[in-house]
Amino acid sequence: MNYKIDNLQYCNWSREVFEINREAGLDAVHVTVVYHEDYKEFQKKVEEWNNLFKNNKDLIFLGKDFKDIEKAKNENKTAIFFGFQNCSPIEDDIELVEKVYESGCRFMQLTYNNQSLLATGCYEKNDSGVTNFGKEVIKEMNRLGIVVDMSHSAEKSTYDAIELSQKPIAITHANPNFWYKAIRNKSDELLKTLSDSGGMLGLSLYAHHLKDKSDCTIESFCEMAARTAEIMGVKNIGIGSDLCLNQPDSVVEWMRNGTWAKTKNYGEGTKEKSGFPKQPEWFTDARGFKNIENGLIKIGFSIQEVYGILGNNWFNFYKGIHK
Amino acid sequence: MNYKIDNLQYCNWSREVFEINREAGLDAVHVTVVYHEDYKEFQKKVEEWNNLFKNNKDLIFLGKDFKDIEKAKNENKTAIFFGFQNCSPIEDDIELVEKVYESGCRFMQLTYNNQSLLATGCYEKNDSGVTNFGKEVIKEMNRLGIVVDMSHSAEKSTYDAIELSQKPIAITHANPNFWYKAIRNKSDELLKTLSDSGGMLGLSLYAHHLKDKSDCTIESFCEMAARTAEIMGVKNIGIGSDLCLNQPDSVVEWMRNGTWAKTKNYGEGTKEKSGFPKQPEWFTDARGFKNIENGLIKIGFSIQEVYGILGNNWFNFYKGIHK
Repeated sequence: MNYKIDNLQYCNWSREVFEINREAGLDAVHVTVVYHEDYKEFQKKVEEWNNLFKNNKDLIFLGKDFKDIEKAKNENKTAIFFGFQNCSPIEDDIELVEKVYESGCRFMQLTYNNQSLLATGCYEKNDSGVTNFGKEVIKEMNRLGIVVDMSHSAEKSTYDAIELSQKPIAITHANPNFWYKAIRNKSDELLKTLSDSGGMLGLSLYAHHLKDKSDCTIESFCEMAARTAEIMGVKNIGIGSDLCLNQPDSVVEWMRNGTWAKTKNYGEGTKEKSGFPKQPEWFTDARGFKNIENGLIKIGFSIQEVYGILGNNWFNFYKGIHK
Repeated sequence: MNYKIDNLQYCNWSREVFEINREAGLDAVHVTVVYHEDYKEFQKKVEEWNNLFKNNKDLIFLGKDFKDIEKAKNENKTAIFFGFQNCSPIEDDIELVEKVYESGCRFMQLTYNNQSLLATGCYEKNDSGVTNFGKEVIKEMNRLGIVVDMSHSAEKSTYDAIELSQKPIAITHANPNFWYKAIRNKSDELLKTLSDSGGMLGLSLYAHHLKDKSDCTIESFCEMAARTAEIMGVKNIGIGSDLCLNQPDSVVEWMRNGTWAKTKNYGEGTKEKSGFPKQPEWFTDARGFKNIENGLIKIGFSIQEVYGILGNNWFNFYKGIHK
C-alpha cells in the first residue's frame, strides 16, 4: 500500500481546500492549528475544527495515529493531524502537554522564529539550546506521542532536541541550505544528524525556502531532493509543503509579528514584498504532488523511492510515534 | 532628609508585617507582587493589594514615584512599590507592559531562574542573552519607567540588559560572589559594569545568599558591604532584603517549581532542607535595619554613607526613573 502525505499545510480551511487535497490523493495532512495562540485560544481552534469535521465528514476526519492514515486510504478521505508551530498553547505549564495531546495535538514546534520557554528560534542572535522547561516538555512529549518539530528552531537547539528526545524528531517543513540559504533552511551536518537518529525532513514548497523563490523550477527542486537523499538517506525525506492556500496577507503579517513587537517585522519578506510569496507554478496547491512525482522519477529515483518521499516515509515515521 | 528603603520583600502580608516595617522606619518597600502569575492572576493580586491598602491606610499606600517616598516620610507611612520576579504577567504581548505599568508595576525581572521569553535565568546551562522580544520590552520599560531587575538572571543576559537599557537597571536582591558563591550572587566585573552604568545593587539578607547562611554574622555582612562599596562605589548599593516573613514552606516550593516540571526542584535548598532557611538572628525582620546601621558605622562608613546604603541611594535611583 502506498500513502500520500503532506506533512505541513496552513491553508484558509474550507470545503474547497479539502476537495483539492482529496483530488491530490492526500491520505493525511499535518495541519497547523496554532501559531501564537495560548491554551484557551487553541481550544477555540479545536471547536472550529470540530465544525469543519462535522460539515465535511465525507472528506476529512481527525487523525490520531498511523491507523487513521490506513483508514483514510480505505475510505477515500484525508486524515487531519493537528500540530502547533509554537509552544504557546502549553504556556508555562507541564500539565498542559497532556491536555493538548488529548485534544489531538501530534506535532509541536519547540519554537517559532523567536526564543520560546523551551528553546531558541532561528531568528535570534544567540542560541542557548533546549531550556530546563524544554527538557521536561520533551520527556512529556515522548511519553505521550507528540512529535518534536524543529522547523523554525536555531541550530544548537535542534541538535539538543535530537539528543534529548528518546524518539525521532522531525523538521516538518524546511529545505537544505546547500541549495538555498534561507535562514530557516538547514545545514548538511544537521540533516545528517537528524536522519542518523531516525528523524524526518519534510521538503518545503514555500517560495521563501526555494532556490529562485517563486521562479524555482521543478527540475531544481528534484535535484535538491536527490542530493538531500544522498545526505540523509532516501527514507528520511518527505513533503511538508508549508502551503498557505487562500490565506490573506494579514495572516503572514500576524505569523511574523504575533504580539511581541511595536515595530513591524517582515521575516523572510521585505517591506516592499511583505505578503505571501507566489507559489511556483508547478505547486500552486496539493495537486502539484503529481508534478513532484513526475519530477522525482525523471531525476532517477525508483518508483518505490518516489512513493516513499510522497508519503510512505512519513507513514512509517507515524508508525513509530506510539511504539 | 534621610530615607529608609527595603528594595525587596515578599512577606505574607498582614497588618503585623506593615507595623513591623513602620517600626523599622521604612519609608518605602519594593514588594514582589507576582512570581509565575499571568496577566489575569496579576490583576487578582492587585485586587488583594487594594484591600490591604484600604484596611491599612494608616500604615501603607501604593507608591508610584519618588515623590511618594517623600510623602510617606511626611505622613509616617510606608510607600509600597509593586514589582515582578518574572515577566509572566506580560505573557507574549508587548501591549501588556503599559497595562502592568498602569496597575502600578515599577520593577520587573526579565527572568526568574529559568529561561523566559525575554532573557536567560541563572539556573539555565547556557545563556543566550536578551531575546528579540526582550529588546522590545526593555524599550517599552524605559519609555514607561519600569526598572529592569536582573537579580535572578544569568550573566550575559545581565550585561545585555545593562547595555540595551537606556536607563540604569537594578539587581534588587543579591550579593557579590567574592563573598559567597551562591549561583545567584554576582561577579565583581558584573557589579562594576552595573555601577558604571548608574545601576544599583540591593544587598540580600536571605540566608542562601549569605556567607555561612543562617549563621552569617553582622560583622561578615558589613565587611562584605565595605568591599562591595570599594568595587561599585558607595552610592550604588542599598538593601533588598528578600525577606519572606511569615511565609509557609509551600511558598518557597512554589517559587522554585511553578508549573514547569513534573519532578521537584529544590533550588538553593536541598531535599533534606527544602523549606525557607532561618534568617540570621540580627535580621529576622525589617527591624534588623538598626543592626545593619550599627554594623556599617562600626566597619568605618561615614554616617552619610550609612544613610545612603539604608535608603538614600535607592531614593536617588527612584528619582532618576521618570526623568
